[in-house]
Amino acid sequence: MTHVDTGVLFVVSGPSGVGKSTLLKHCLSVFPDISFSVSATTRDPRAGEEDGVDYHFVTRSRFDELVREDAFIEHATVYDRSYGTLRSTTRAAIDSGRSLILDIDVQGAAQVRRHMPDAAHIIVVPPNLAVLEERLRRRGTDSDEVINRRMDQVAQQLLACDVFDYVVVNDDLLEAHRTFNGIFAAELARCSRLGSVVAAVRGWAMLRD
Amino acid sequence: MTHVDTGVLFVVSGPSGVGKSTLLKHCLSVFPDISFSVSATTRDPRAGEEDGVDYHFVTRSRFDELVREDAFIEHATVYDRSYGTLRSTTRAAIDSGRSLILDIDVQGAAQVRRHMPDAAHIIVVPPNLAVLEERLRRRGTDSDEVINRRMDQVAQQLLACDVFDYVVVNDDLLEAHRTFNGIFAAELARCSRLGSVVAAVRGWAMLRD
Repeated sequence: MTHVDTGVLFVVSGPSGVGKSTLLKHCLSVFPDISFSVSATTRDPRAGEEDGVDYHFVTRSRFDELVREDAFIEHATVYDRSYGTLRSTTRAAIDSGRSLILDIDVQGAAQVRRHMPDAAHIIVVPPNLAVLEERLRRRGTDSDEVINRRMDQVAQQLLACDVFDYVVVNDDLLEAHRTFNGIFAAELARCSRLGSVVAAVRGWAMLRD
Repeated sequence: MTHVDTGVLFVVSGPSGVGKSTLLKHCLSVFPDISFSVSATTRDPRAGEEDGVDYHFVTRSRFDELVREDAFIEHATVYDRSYGTLRSTTRAAIDSGRSLILDIDVQGAAQVRRHMPDAAHIIVVPPNLAVLEERLRRRGTDSDEVINRRMDQVAQQLLACDVFDYVVVNDDLLEAHRTFNGIFAAELARCSRLGSVVAAVRGWAMLRD
Protein backbone atom coordinates (compact mmCIF):
# COMPACT_ATOMS: atom_id res chain seq x y z
CA MET A 1 0.00 0.00 0.00
CA THR A 2 1.22 3.47 -0.88
CA HIS A 3 1.47 5.37 2.35
CA VAL A 4 0.56 8.95 2.87
CA ASP A 5 2.92 11.09 4.94
CA THR A 6 0.05 12.76 6.65
CA GLY A 7 -3.17 10.91 7.35
CA VAL A 8 -6.51 12.13 6.13
CA LEU A 9 -9.32 13.16 8.43
CA PHE A 10 -12.54 11.94 6.80
CA VAL A 11 -15.70 13.59 8.04
CA VAL A 12 -18.76 11.51 7.20
CA SER A 13 -22.25 12.90 7.72
CA GLY A 14 -25.71 11.89 6.67
CA PRO A 15 -29.15 11.49 8.16
CA SER A 16 -30.15 8.49 10.24
CA GLY A 17 -31.41 5.66 8.04
CA VAL A 18 -29.40 6.67 5.00
CA GLY A 19 -27.16 3.61 5.14
CA LYS A 20 -24.03 5.33 6.39
CA SER A 21 -23.08 2.50 8.79
CA THR A 22 -23.19 -0.10 6.00
CA LEU A 23 -21.01 2.08 3.79
CA LEU A 24 -18.56 2.75 6.63
CA LYS A 25 -18.31 -0.91 7.62
CA HIS A 26 -17.45 -1.99 4.09
CA CYS A 27 -15.03 0.90 3.70
CA LEU A 28 -13.14 -0.04 6.87
CA SER A 29 -12.81 -3.63 5.61
CA VAL A 30 -11.26 -2.35 2.37
CA PHE A 31 -8.91 0.13 4.08
CA PRO A 32 -7.57 -1.61 7.20
CA ASP A 33 -5.25 1.35 7.89
CA ILE A 34 -8.16 3.71 8.44
CA SER A 35 -9.94 3.72 11.78
CA PHE A 36 -12.70 5.52 13.60
CA SER A 37 -11.71 8.46 15.71
CA VAL A 38 -12.20 7.85 19.44
CA SER A 39 -14.41 10.54 20.98
CA ALA A 40 -14.36 11.93 24.47
CA THR A 41 -17.74 11.65 26.19
CA THR A 42 -19.40 12.41 29.49
CA ARG A 43 -21.74 9.43 29.23
CA ASP A 44 -21.15 6.32 31.34
CA PRO A 45 -19.37 3.34 29.78
CA ARG A 46 -21.71 0.52 28.71
CA ALA A 47 -20.89 -3.13 29.37
CA GLY A 48 -17.81 -4.12 27.38
CA GLU A 49 -16.82 -0.59 26.45
CA GLU A 50 -13.19 0.20 27.10
CA ASP A 51 -11.77 3.61 28.01
CA GLY A 52 -9.46 4.88 25.27
CA VAL A 53 -10.74 2.29 22.79
CA ASP A 54 -14.47 2.93 22.44
CA TYR A 55 -14.45 6.37 24.01
CA HIS A 56 -12.35 8.54 26.25
CA PHE A 57 -14.68 8.61 29.26
CA VAL A 58 -14.42 11.91 31.11
CA THR A 59 -16.36 13.68 33.83
CA ARG A 60 -18.62 16.64 33.09
CA SER A 61 -16.23 19.06 34.76
CA ARG A 62 -13.26 17.72 32.81
CA PHE A 63 -15.26 17.95 29.57
CA ASP A 64 -16.22 21.55 30.26
CA GLU A 65 -12.60 22.32 31.06
CA LEU A 66 -11.53 20.81 27.72
CA VAL A 67 -14.12 22.98 25.95
CA ARG A 68 -12.73 26.09 27.66
CA GLU A 69 -9.19 25.06 26.67
CA ASP A 70 -10.36 24.78 23.03
CA ALA A 71 -9.15 21.17 23.09
CA PHE A 72 -11.88 19.90 20.74
CA ILE A 73 -12.06 20.20 16.97
CA GLU A 74 -15.79 19.58 17.36
CA HIS A 75 -18.12 18.85 20.23
CA ALA A 76 -21.83 18.58 20.80
CA THR A 77 -24.30 17.90 23.56
CA VAL A 78 -27.27 15.61 22.94
CA TYR A 79 -29.76 14.97 25.77
CA ASP A 80 -27.29 16.06 28.50
CA ARG A 81 -24.52 13.85 27.15
CA SER A 82 -21.54 15.56 25.60
CA TYR A 83 -19.28 14.19 22.91
CA GLY A 84 -16.15 15.72 21.47
CA THR A 85 -13.16 15.00 19.25
CA LEU A 86 -9.83 15.91 20.83
CA ARG A 87 -7.47 17.98 18.75
CA SER A 88 -4.37 16.41 20.34
CA THR A 89 -5.18 12.75 19.58
CA THR A 90 -6.51 13.60 16.12
CA ARG A 91 -3.41 15.61 15.26
CA ALA A 92 -1.10 12.87 16.57
CA ALA A 93 -2.82 10.21 14.41
CA ILE A 94 -2.86 12.36 11.28
CA ASP A 95 0.75 13.47 11.72
CA SER A 96 1.89 9.86 12.04
CA GLY A 97 0.20 8.99 8.73
CA ARG A 98 -2.90 7.30 10.10
CA SER A 99 -6.24 8.31 8.65
CA LEU A 100 -9.33 8.75 10.77
CA ILE A 101 -13.07 8.76 10.24
CA LEU A 102 -15.35 11.12 12.12
CA ASP A 103 -19.03 10.16 11.94
CA ILE A 104 -20.69 13.43 12.95
CA ASP A 105 -23.56 15.71 12.02
CA VAL A 106 -23.50 18.79 9.85
CA GLN A 107 -22.91 21.17 12.76
CA GLY A 108 -19.90 19.13 13.88
CA ALA A 109 -18.61 19.00 10.32
CA ALA A 110 -18.68 22.79 10.17
CA GLN A 111 -16.63 22.99 13.39
CA VAL A 112 -14.05 20.55 11.96
CA ARG A 113 -13.84 22.63 8.78
CA ARG A 114 -12.71 25.60 10.85
CA HIS A 115 -10.17 23.65 12.93
CA MET A 116 -8.82 21.20 10.33
CA PRO A 117 -9.22 22.75 6.88
CA ASP A 118 -7.51 19.77 5.22
CA ALA A 119 -10.20 17.24 6.18
CA ALA A 120 -12.28 15.54 3.45
CA HIS A 121 -16.01 16.03 4.03
CA ILE A 122 -18.51 13.50 2.72
CA ILE A 123 -22.29 13.57 3.05
CA VAL A 124 -24.42 10.52 2.30
CA VAL A 125 -27.90 11.43 1.05
CA PRO A 126 -30.94 9.32 0.18
CA PRO A 127 -32.29 9.28 -3.40
CA ASN A 128 -35.32 11.13 -2.00
CA LEU A 129 -36.97 11.90 1.35
CA ALA A 130 -39.80 9.36 0.95
CA VAL A 131 -37.30 6.48 0.79
CA LEU A 132 -35.76 7.57 4.06
CA GLU A 133 -39.11 7.99 5.82
CA GLU A 134 -40.15 4.56 4.56
CA ARG A 135 -36.92 3.04 5.96
CA LEU A 136 -37.52 4.65 9.37
CA ARG A 137 -41.12 3.37 9.39
CA ARG A 138 -40.08 -0.13 8.37
CA ARG A 139 -37.84 -0.38 11.44
CA GLY A 140 -41.09 -0.21 13.38
CA THR A 141 -39.39 1.14 16.48
CA ASP A 142 -40.64 4.73 16.43
CA SER A 143 -44.01 6.43 16.71
CA ASP A 144 -45.28 8.74 13.96
CA GLU A 145 -44.42 11.73 16.12
CA VAL A 146 -40.81 10.57 16.58
CA ILE A 147 -40.52 9.83 12.88
CA ASN A 148 -41.85 13.28 12.03
CA ARG A 149 -39.36 14.92 14.36
CA ARG A 150 -36.57 12.81 12.88
CA MET A 151 -37.55 13.80 9.36
CA ASP A 152 -37.40 17.46 10.38
CA GLN A 153 -33.87 16.85 11.66
CA VAL A 154 -33.02 15.05 8.41
CA ALA A 155 -34.24 18.05 6.44
CA GLN A 156 -32.08 20.36 8.52
CA GLN A 157 -29.02 18.19 7.91
CA LEU A 158 -29.65 17.94 4.19
CA LEU A 159 -30.09 21.69 3.81
CA ALA A 160 -26.35 21.99 4.49
CA CYS A 161 -25.31 19.35 1.96
CA ASP A 162 -23.70 21.97 -0.28
CA VAL A 163 -20.87 22.67 2.17
CA PHE A 164 -19.47 19.14 1.81
CA ASP A 165 -16.68 18.17 -0.56
CA TYR A 166 -18.42 15.03 -1.75
CA VAL A 167 -22.03 13.90 -2.03
CA VAL A 168 -22.78 10.17 -2.15
CA VAL A 169 -26.33 9.37 -3.20
CA ASN A 170 -27.27 6.04 -1.64
CA ASP A 171 -29.65 4.84 -4.34
CA ASP A 172 -27.97 1.80 -5.86
CA LEU A 173 -25.96 0.23 -3.00
CA LEU A 174 -23.17 -1.16 -5.18
CA GLU A 175 -22.64 2.20 -6.81
CA ALA A 176 -22.76 3.95 -3.44
CA HIS A 177 -20.06 1.59 -2.10
CA ARG A 178 -17.92 2.22 -5.16
CA THR A 179 -18.24 5.97 -4.84
CA PHE A 180 -17.76 6.00 -1.08
CA ASN A 181 -14.67 3.79 -1.14
CA GLY A 182 -13.45 5.65 -4.21
CA ILE A 183 -13.40 8.91 -2.29
CA PHE A 184 -11.18 7.35 0.36
CA ALA A 185 -8.84 5.86 -2.24
CA ALA A 186 -8.66 9.15 -4.13
CA GLU A 187 -7.95 11.29 -1.07
CA LEU A 188 -5.14 8.91 -0.11
CA ALA A 189 -3.67 9.27 -3.62
CA ARG A 190 -3.53 13.06 -3.56
CA CYS A 191 -0.14 14.29 -4.62
CA SER A 192 -0.24 16.88 -1.84
CA ARG A 193 -0.44 14.07 0.73
CA LEU A 194 2.22 11.83 -0.84
CA GLY A 195 5.30 13.94 -0.27
CA SER A 196 7.64 10.97 0.29
CA VAL A 197 6.43 9.10 -2.81
CA VAL A 198 6.78 12.22 -4.95
CA ALA A 199 10.25 12.91 -3.52
CA ALA A 200 11.33 9.32 -4.22
CA VAL A 201 10.06 9.40 -7.82
CA ARG A 202 11.75 12.75 -8.46
CA GLY A 203 14.88 11.36 -6.83
CA TRP A 204 15.26 8.51 -9.34
CA ALA A 205 14.33 10.85 -12.17
CA MET A 206 17.03 13.34 -11.20
CA LEU A 207 19.68 10.61 -10.98
CA ARG A 208 18.78 9.57 -14.53
CA ASP A 209 18.26 13.02 -15.99
CA MET B 1 -25.97 6.60 -11.82
CA THR B 2 -25.68 10.01 -10.24
CA HIS B 3 -25.03 12.43 -13.03
CA VAL B 4 -22.73 15.39 -12.89
CA ASP B 5 -23.97 18.63 -14.43
CA THR B 6 -20.59 19.34 -15.87
CA GLY B 7 -18.37 16.52 -17.04
CA VAL B 8 -14.87 16.06 -15.74
CA LEU B 9 -11.80 16.29 -17.92
CA PHE B 10 -9.40 13.61 -16.70
CA VAL B 11 -5.79 14.08 -17.74
CA VAL B 12 -3.85 10.83 -17.43
CA SER B 13 -0.09 10.80 -17.82
CA GLY B 14 2.62 8.29 -17.11
CA PRO B 15 5.68 6.86 -18.80
CA SER B 16 5.48 4.17 -21.45
CA GLY B 17 5.44 0.71 -19.88
CA VAL B 18 3.89 1.83 -16.61
CA GLY B 19 0.61 -0.01 -17.24
CA LYS B 20 -1.50 3.03 -18.01
CA SER B 21 -3.41 1.32 -20.84
CA THR B 22 -4.46 -1.58 -18.61
CA LEU B 23 -5.68 0.82 -15.94
CA LEU B 24 -7.55 2.93 -18.49
CA LYS B 25 -9.18 -0.07 -20.15
CA HIS B 26 -10.54 -1.36 -16.85
CA CYS B 27 -11.63 2.12 -15.82
CA LEU B 28 -13.61 2.63 -19.04
CA SER B 29 -15.39 -0.69 -18.47
CA VAL B 30 -16.43 0.46 -14.97
CA PHE B 31 -17.52 3.94 -16.10
CA PRO B 32 -19.32 3.51 -19.42
CA ASP B 33 -20.24 7.22 -19.45
CA ILE B 34 -16.61 8.29 -19.66
CA SER B 35 -14.86 8.21 -23.01
CA PHE B 36 -11.55 9.07 -24.58
CA SER B 37 -11.21 12.51 -26.05
CA VAL B 38 -10.87 12.46 -29.86
CA SER B 39 -7.72 14.29 -30.95
CA ALA B 40 -7.11 16.22 -34.12
CA THR B 41 -4.06 14.98 -36.02
CA THR B 42 -2.13 15.62 -39.19
CA ARG B 43 -1.19 11.99 -39.62
CA ASP B 44 -2.90 9.82 -42.25
CA PRO B 45 -5.75 7.56 -41.19
CA ARG B 46 -4.79 3.91 -40.81
CA ALA B 47 -6.96 1.09 -42.10
CA GLY B 48 -10.25 1.02 -40.22
CA GLU B 49 -9.79 4.43 -38.58
CA GLU B 50 -12.77 6.71 -38.90
CA ASP B 51 -12.68 10.49 -39.06
CA GLY B 52 -14.40 12.01 -36.02
CA VAL B 53 -14.32 8.70 -34.14
CA ASP B 54 -10.66 7.72 -33.85
CA TYR B 55 -9.25 11.13 -34.74
CA HIS B 56 -10.23 14.34 -36.41
CA PHE B 57 -7.98 14.05 -39.46
CA VAL B 58 -6.85 17.46 -40.65
CA THR B 59 -4.26 18.80 -43.08
CA ARG B 60 -1.06 20.42 -41.90
CA SER B 61 -2.20 23.86 -42.99
CA ARG B 62 -5.53 23.45 -41.17
CA PHE B 63 -3.72 22.25 -38.03
CA ASP B 64 -1.38 25.24 -38.09
CA GLU B 65 -4.35 27.53 -38.57
CA LEU B 66 -6.04 25.97 -35.51
CA VAL B 67 -2.87 26.54 -33.49
CA ARG B 68 -2.84 30.21 -34.55
CA GLU B 69 -6.52 30.51 -33.60
CA ASP B 70 -5.70 29.09 -30.12
CA ALA B 71 -8.24 26.32 -30.80
CA PHE B 72 -6.31 23.66 -28.85
CA ILE B 73 -6.18 23.14 -25.10
CA GLU B 74 -2.98 21.16 -25.76
CA HIS B 75 -1.05 20.14 -28.83
CA ALA B 76 2.27 18.52 -29.60
CA THR B 77 4.34 17.48 -32.56
CA VAL B 78 6.14 14.13 -32.53
CA TYR B 79 8.24 13.09 -35.55
CA ASP B 80 6.53 15.57 -37.90
CA ARG B 81 3.06 14.45 -36.86
CA SER B 82 0.96 16.86 -34.88
CA TYR B 83 -1.75 16.01 -32.40
CA GLY B 84 -4.05 18.35 -30.55
CA THR B 85 -7.16 18.47 -28.37
CA LEU B 86 -9.79 20.91 -29.61
CA ARG B 87 -11.18 23.32 -27.07
CA SER B 88 -14.60 23.43 -28.80
CA THR B 89 -15.34 19.68 -28.78
CA THR B 90 -13.91 19.27 -25.26
CA ARG B 91 -15.96 22.16 -23.92
CA ALA B 92 -19.14 20.85 -25.63
CA ALA B 93 -18.71 17.38 -24.08
CA ILE B 94 -17.92 18.69 -20.60
CA ASP B 95 -20.77 21.21 -20.67
CA SER B 96 -23.25 18.48 -21.61
CA GLY B 97 -22.17 16.39 -18.59
CA ARG B 98 -19.94 13.90 -20.39
CA SER B 99 -16.52 13.21 -18.92
CA LEU B 100 -13.44 12.78 -21.06
CA ILE B 101 -10.04 11.20 -20.68
CA LEU B 102 -6.95 12.76 -22.21
CA ASP B 103 -3.98 10.41 -22.34
CA ILE B 104 -1.12 12.87 -22.80
CA ASP B 105 2.39 13.60 -21.58
CA VAL B 106 3.49 15.98 -18.86
CA GLN B 107 4.00 18.89 -21.24
CA GLY B 108 0.47 18.46 -22.61
CA ALA B 109 -0.90 18.20 -19.08
CA ALA B 110 0.68 21.55 -18.22
CA GLN B 111 -1.00 23.14 -21.26
CA VAL B 112 -4.39 21.71 -20.20
CA ARG B 113 -3.87 23.08 -16.68
CA ARG B 114 -3.63 26.57 -18.12
CA HIS B 115 -6.67 26.23 -20.39
CA MET B 116 -8.98 24.07 -18.25
CA PRO B 117 -8.13 24.66 -14.58
CA ASP B 118 -10.95 22.35 -13.45
CA ALA B 119 -9.45 19.19 -14.99
CA ALA B 120 -8.33 16.33 -12.71
CA HIS B 121 -4.69 15.39 -13.35
CA ILE B 122 -3.46 11.86 -12.64
CA ILE B 123 0.04 10.50 -13.12
CA VAL B 124 0.75 6.77 -13.04
CA VAL B 125 4.25 5.96 -11.78
CA PRO B 126 6.18 2.70 -11.46
CA PRO B 127 7.27 1.46 -8.01
CA ASN B 128 10.83 2.15 -9.17
CA LEU B 129 12.77 2.81 -12.37
CA ALA B 130 14.33 -0.66 -12.60
CA VAL B 131 10.89 -2.28 -12.86
CA LEU B 132 10.04 -0.07 -15.80
CA GLU B 133 13.34 -0.69 -17.60
CA GLU B 134 12.86 -4.43 -17.07
CA ARG B 135 9.36 -4.24 -18.57
CA LEU B 136 10.67 -2.39 -21.64
CA ARG B 137 13.46 -4.97 -22.07
CA ARG B 138 11.09 -7.88 -21.67
CA ARG B 139 9.03 -6.63 -24.61
CA GLY B 140 12.16 -7.42 -26.65
CA THR B 141 11.25 -4.95 -29.37
CA ASP B 142 13.81 -2.24 -28.68
CA SER B 143 17.58 -1.99 -28.81
CA ASP B 144 19.57 -0.95 -25.73
CA GLU B 145 20.04 2.46 -27.27
CA VAL B 146 16.30 2.96 -27.76
CA ILE B 147 15.60 1.72 -24.25
CA ASN B 148 18.17 4.13 -22.84
CA ARG B 149 16.62 7.02 -24.71
CA ARG B 150 13.17 5.96 -23.52
CA MET B 151 14.36 5.81 -19.94
CA ASP B 152 15.69 9.35 -20.23
CA GLN B 153 12.26 10.44 -21.43
CA VAL B 154 10.66 8.55 -18.55
CA ALA B 155 12.89 10.39 -16.09
CA GLN B 156 11.91 13.71 -17.64
CA GLN B 157 8.21 12.87 -17.30
CA LEU B 158 8.57 11.70 -13.71
CA LEU B 159 10.44 14.82 -12.65
CA ALA B 160 7.18 16.71 -13.11
CA CYS B 161 5.05 14.28 -11.07
CA ASP B 162 4.54 16.85 -8.32
CA VAL B 163 2.33 19.06 -10.49
CA PHE B 164 -0.38 16.38 -10.74
CA ASP B 165 -3.41 16.18 -8.46
CA TYR B 166 -3.11 12.43 -7.96
CA VAL B 167 -0.26 9.92 -8.04
CA VAL B 168 -1.06 6.25 -8.67
CA VAL B 169 1.84 3.92 -7.92
CA ASN B 170 1.43 0.85 -10.12
CA ASP B 171 3.03 -1.69 -7.81
CA ASP B 172 0.23 -4.02 -6.82
CA LEU B 173 -2.13 -4.10 -9.82
CA LEU B 174 -5.32 -4.65 -7.83
CA GLU B 175 -4.54 -1.72 -5.58
CA ALA B 176 -3.61 0.44 -8.56
CA HIS B 177 -6.97 -0.37 -10.20
CA ARG B 178 -8.79 0.47 -6.99
CA THR B 179 -7.00 3.79 -6.62
CA PHE B 180 -7.27 4.70 -10.28
CA ASN B 181 -11.00 3.95 -10.51
CA GLY B 182 -11.51 5.52 -7.10
CA ILE B 183 -10.17 8.84 -8.36
CA PHE B 184 -12.72 8.82 -11.18
CA ALA B 185 -15.57 7.91 -8.81
CA ALA B 186 -14.50 10.60 -6.34
CA GLU B 187 -14.17 13.37 -8.89
CA LEU B 188 -17.66 12.52 -10.18
CA ALA B 189 -19.00 12.77 -6.61
CA ARG B 190 -17.61 16.26 -5.95
CA CYS B 191 -20.28 18.50 -4.55
CA SER B 192 -19.05 21.30 -6.81
CA ARG B 193 -19.88 19.18 -9.86
CA LEU B 194 -23.26 17.94 -8.64
CA GLY B 195 -25.23 21.18 -8.71
CA SER B 196 -28.52 19.52 -9.72
CA VAL B 197 -28.29 16.80 -7.08
CA VAL B 198 -27.46 19.34 -4.37
CA ALA B 199 -30.29 21.61 -5.51
CA ALA B 200 -32.76 18.69 -5.47
CA VAL B 201 -31.70 17.59 -1.97
CA ARG B 202 -31.94 21.15 -0.65
CA GLY B 203 -35.29 21.45 -2.40
CA TRP B 204 -36.87 18.57 -0.43
CA ALA B 205 -35.22 19.77 2.74
CA MET B 206 -36.66 23.25 2.36
CA LEU B 207 -40.15 21.90 1.71
CA ARG B 208 -39.89 19.95 4.95
CA ASP B 209 -38.10 22.58 7.01
